[in-house]
Amino acid sequence: MRITVLSGGIGGARFLTGLRSAVDPDRDPITVIGNTADDIWLFGLRVCPDLDTVMYTLGGEIDPERGWGRRDETWQAKDELAAYGVEPTWFGLGDRDMATHLVRTQMLTAGYPLSAVTEALCARWDLGLRLLPMTDDRVETHVVVDDPTAEAGRRAVHFQEYWVRLHAPVAHSVVPVGAEDARPGPGVVEAIAEADVLILPPSNPVVSIGTILAVPGVADAIRQTSAAVVGVSPIIGGAPVRGMADKLLPVIGVDVSARAVAAHYGSRSAGGLLDGWLVDEADAADIAEIERVGLAARAVPLYMTGPDAAQSLARDTLELAASIQAVGAS
Amino acid sequence: MRITVLSGGIGGARFLTGLRSAVDPDRDPITVIGNTADDIWLFGLRVCPDLDTVMYTLGGEIDPERGWGRRDETWQAKDELAAYGVEPTWFGLGDRDMATHLVRTQMLTAGYPLSAVTEALCARWDLGLRLLPMTDDRVETHVVVDDPTAEAGRRAVHFQEYWVRLHAPVAHSVVPVGAEDARPGPGVVEAIAEADVLILPPSNPVVSIGTILAVPGVADAIRQTSAAVVGVSPIIGGAPVRGMADKLLPVIGVDVSARAVAAHYGSRSAGGLLDGWLVDEADAADIAEIERVGLAARAVPLYMTGPDAAQSLARDTLELAASIQAVGAS
Repeated sequence: MRITVLSGGIGGARFLTGLRSAVDPDRDPITVIGNTADDIWLFGLRVCPDLDTVMYTLGGEIDPERGWGRRDETWQAKDELAAYGVEPTWFGLGDRDMATHLVRTQMLTAGYPLSAVTEALCARWDLGLRLLPMTDDRVETHVVVDDPTAEAGRRAVHFQEYWVRLHAPVAHSVVPVGAEDARPGPGVVEAIAEADVLILPPSNPVVSIGTILAVPGVADAIRQTSAAVVGVSPIIGGAPVRGMADKLLPVIGVDVSARAVAAHYGSRSAGGLLDGWLVDEADAADIAEIERVGLAARAVPLYMTGPDAAQSLARDTLELAASIQAVGAS
Repeated sequence: MRITVLSGGIGGARFLTGLRSAVDPDRDPITVIGNTADDIWLFGLRVCPDLDTVMYTLGGEIDPERGWGRRDETWQAKDELAAYGVEPTWFGLGDRDMATHLVRTQMLTAGYPLSAVTEALCARWDLGLRLLPMTDDRVETHVVVDDPTAEAGRRAVHFQEYWVRLHAPVAHSVVPVGAEDARPGPGVVEAIAEADVLILPPSNPVVSIGTILAVPGVADAIRQTSAAVVGVSPIIGGAPVRGMADKLLPVIGVDVSARAVAAHYGSRSAGGLLDGWLVDEADAADIAEIERVGLAARAVPLYMTGPDAAQSLARDTLELAASIQAVGAS
């Protein structure tokens, strides 16, 4: 069974640890298509937060408290950069983490595409899965926020500034700059087309899954794949488990609920992207409405409180996919 | 009194701490022309070991044991780079130190010349003196060493590899690559021409002072300045205090002795570069021969065992310069 997962950062990475433990990766190879739209140049270094969160989490070296960056991290270079008065001071670039960005930037500067760089970085980590950037092209999510000091009263900021520095204020629009001209990275379309199961884990529908889908060719590949396509709601009881989806879903006209996100993705039977959708038990009442959209739906525990819960969620996801495949085969 | 000093790394930097404490920097402004020929690109970062040693030493943040790099340093990024299998692993790039190279590289990439970058970096440190790179152009010292695996039996390595990785084996030649096309950095010629006292501290005559002198225009400016030009022997009792001058002086045909280095620089009265030369008391017997070359010479304690000794050496240097000026004025 070939499994392909579209992933943002923390939520996707935790789901992936559960998935990896729920299958035999030799028999059931996992390919991850990682979001690169929150990548950013900082201090001359190319930082890929979502790819790194997947890499560090699956590599067992993520900081478990923060959910991003390296375990046993130090911040000497960051403090020194601040002492030199260099901006930005709001992004947490740790000393261990720094090495990843140095290697990446040096390889990019030498002419390697991000996909080759990511493969080289992952070679160290023994991830038990294949991590593909959604694209080798530059795509950066910008968010338009209020700014009384700007002539127009608003300005566009990089997603990292929106989230890390400004802590997700009211947003007026979200634009994955460069996405319309981007091409899917090597292997991305194939990983979708040739999958048996395609999973949208509980990553942000706007700035993680949404930006992957914004790369021309990705959504079409999902519509056409013979895989069972199942998603896990990032919303539980009307709120995101982590992150700022509650601030960004309204910007694209989607309510902050498990059923609204399901309707947003839509059913492949009606030109949408999903065959099935998992909601938390707290949202069991949504199931009927989700089924009316044309999706198979189940309510299971979605909170990934630890490795066991993440594994259990992955099993539930695969079971939903299997039930969809069984119906399709019948 | 305007004082200008040509400086390499540790020896020059320690001398400068003594000099700064020996004068009133407001009344007696100090300008340092720093060697940049052992600069190196590492992991995509531009590292300037001699400029940084001067900056960190005068800034009070040098590691006092090593004599290079930052106090209270950590090595997390270095260890991680090694874990990624990235070469070279033999260069000690600390986490605090890293910030300096990040700022420098970012500014260089943005188009600022090294002189402007150095000024910006120094703004943080309150050095009490002005630090000028010898040139804004790229000059890199290469050393030819034996290599049985090379077709020619020899190969050229970067000075840092010669010294840090190979620990100064037998050398066949030393070439400051790019020097002949380099131009003195902004202010360098002026700092020599307008000085009252010009000092060659006990820096390496081949790969520190020698490379500064290899920049076209620098040696001529020294020959023509109205300043008293005095030097401090880097050799005591036939050996360098630190470093590898004993390995490199023979390569340029100079004996490893205080008097041979003096003769190598030569007297300005005979087309050379010096008016006066300080040797250690251990080399007092050399004075007569040094005076025969046309230099004023004195034997004083040269070992900079601490701040007091460095200050005392600086005072002796200034006194020698004053005595030369008195003779010139008479």
